[in-house]
Amino acid sequence: MRFNKVLQNIKTYEAGKPIELVVREFGISAEDVVKLASNENPIGTSPSVAKAIVDNSHKAHLYPDDSMFELKAALSEKYGVKDENIIIGAGSDQVLEFISRAVLDENSSVLMSAVTFAMYEIYAKQMGAKIIRTASHEHKYDEFMEAYRMHQPKIIYICTPNNPTGDATSKEEVLEIINAVDSDTLIVVDGAYMEYAAAKDEKYAITPNDLLGFENVIYLGTFSKAYGLGGMRVGYGIAQTELIHELYKMRPPFNISTLSLAAAIAACKDDDFVAESIALHQAQIKRYEAFADAQGFKYIESYTNFITYLFDESIDSTKIADALLKRGVIIRNLASYEMNAIRITIGTAKQNDVFFKHFLEVTA
Amino acid sequence: MRFNKVLQNIKTYEAGKPIELVVREFGISAEDVVKLASNENPIGTSPSVAKAIVDNSHKAHLYPDDSMFELKAALSEKYGVKDENIIIGAGSDQVLEFISRAVLDENSSVLMSAVTFAMYEIYAKQMGAKIIRTASHEHKYDEFMEAYRMHQPKIIYICTPNNPTGDATSKEEVLEIINAVDSDTLIVVDGAYMEYAAAKDEKYAITPNDLLGFENVIYLGTFSKAYGLGGMRVGYGIAQTELIHELYKMRPPFNISTLSLAAAIAACKDDDFVAESIALHQAQIKRYEAFADAQGFKYIESYTNFITYLFDESIDSTKIADALLKRGVIIRNLASYEMNAIRITIGTAKQNDVFFKHFLEVTA
Repeated sequence: MRFNKVLQNIKTYEAGKPIELVVREFGISAEDVVKLASNENPIGTSPSVAKAIVDNSHKAHLYPDDSMFELKAALSEKYGVKDENIIIGAGSDQVLEFISRAVLDENSSVLMSAVTFAMYEIYAKQMGAKIIRTASHEHKYDEFMEAYRMHQPKIIYICTPNNPTGDATSKEEVLEIINAVDSDTLIVVDGAYMEYAAAKDEKYAITPNDLLGFENVIYLGTFSKAYGLGGMRVGYGIAQTELIHELYKMRPPFNISTLSLAAAIAACKDDDFVAESIALHQAQIKRYEAFADAQGFKYIESYTNFITYLFDESIDSTKIADALLKRGVIIRNLASYEMNAIRITIGTAKQNDVFFKHFLEVTA
Repeated sequence: MRFNKVLQNIKTYEAGKPIELVVREFGISAEDVVKLASNENPIGTSPSVAKAIVDNSHKAHLYPDDSMFELKAALSEKYGVKDENIIIGAGSDQVLEFISRAVLDENSSVLMSAVTFAMYEIYAKQMGAKIIRTASHEHKYDEFMEAYRMHQPKIIYICTPNNPTGDATSKEEVLEIINAVDSDTLIVVDGAYMEYAAAKDEKYAITPNDLLGFENVIYLGTFSKAYGLGGMRVGYGIAQTELIHELYKMRPPFNISTLSLAAAIAACKDDDFVAESIALHQAQIKRYEAFADAQGFKYIESYTNFITYLFDESIDSTKIADALLKRGVIIRNLASYEMNAIRITIGTAKQNDVFFKHFLEVTA
């Protein structure tokens, strides 16, 4: 068998360790595992979502409404856009995949910041495209413009707030980049964590409508974070109709399961749950900032539901992550991003207590 | 914006009409709509699956175990294969997509029968590959060999039993094709409806183990049909480790939702539900055969959970399908396959009664 040559440059993706694996490997009972690694919503599932799932549990045999009429109607109302401006993906990940496949080939390149969401690179590599990164993990106008002029990338990714670092790019700066770029370059504004940034500082709030005037810009959102549907895999892209129409050509039918669709419709209408999630988050993240200050290490100011602790040479992020894992505390080691840093999802008060306790013990 | 030139040849896929649309368009109440169009399991959702969904309804915020440890263990046990021989997709559709992306490019071709599962062509076109079809909708050895020698396709699709026609290819004939083909051509044996064929006549029963000796063959199965999980989107491919390893490079992380995974694990262990589904099916399909005989039209002998009625010029399949739709009976018109025929999913006794009644009225 001969495979496409692009496969030679692709490593199989390894996802973060699930609770089940820690249970199996370290013999810790599932209830004692604290997972602060995947930026899941610590409040859990909204009661309205759980109800929608239970109410539809007898419909597992029925294919979903592939037009996603009701979910698009809910999103249209939320954002004041038309349903033909929307494409739904199995997570915003899948919209990234549609984008990559619709515009990239082996002769193209994509531009992103030094440290950003891993899937941009993975999907681009699947198309054989070249990866260009700026020097900083922040989205700096000058760095992006220099690389843009040099490489003429087909796609520029702006992840704001940025994952896995937590910093954000202001609406003004994003529009500055968009305005400086030719319309043959597609700009992806990935707002997976936007609800947290918008609640923290309106300067960073970007809505799909802010970008709909540009033919070469797509806004991505997700139900996985503030809406609490990480396990259901539902995200969306919002852009001008012509762009959505082309992306639809790469969409497989029934890409959202019947129950994920029901859950997303319920979640989309449940603004109270989002408000509650953000209120908890804003109270708890202050504890992480105070903890870092007290312990004497730096952190990146976060506009997301996680925080990134930066260590100097006295602490090794891999050792910390491994030691915490053996104690049933799962966080994300950023060594694979060439950072001596860890990313911690802000949990419930109780989960955070457990993290602080074990962190102190393993660094003692 | 410039898009990949392969997009020029792709039409946006239009899925079959869901019940919700018939309700919206024709003002028929949902309970009165009889959908026999998507080969869904008419018994509905297995109680063990519904229970697994309800039990996990509070976990919508948690990402699934991306190693799919438990589901692979259940499949390994069912088929007597190793977990490294298995790749899980969002429906076997998604495994077809991985295959297409891993081996095809704009210089390659794929070979399939005249009328077969629509996604083979769609995924191949997304890669810019050329579509070669044999003259018959059945998988005839001589026709496949002639086209194989002429075109040297990268993939040969054998859909057995075949969708949307219902005929099947015997294990002996499938092995004959496999043995005659060079190992640089990948052979996909798509057994989405295999449970029905195997129950009807063991000559047509093919298991993954029958094919694991060939490095260039992959068996596809699904939970969407006999297992009753059409809405959950879970299927699988089983092949030698090296092939699975390459396909994994095209798999997005978390491609199965938390609830779909829980549902598939429950379904995989529920052989009683499959047996019950097949028993109902075998009793009810006889009614469709007798009905066709009585009405004087032909049908294709079916090894699946649907039946294809073939009409002569006295009946127009499009008119019949439209007339039935207005009465809330959804079946699949095969005019788009250049067949004057309709495909009807075998329903419950009651659903079938409704079909027969309305069919007689609209053809009167």
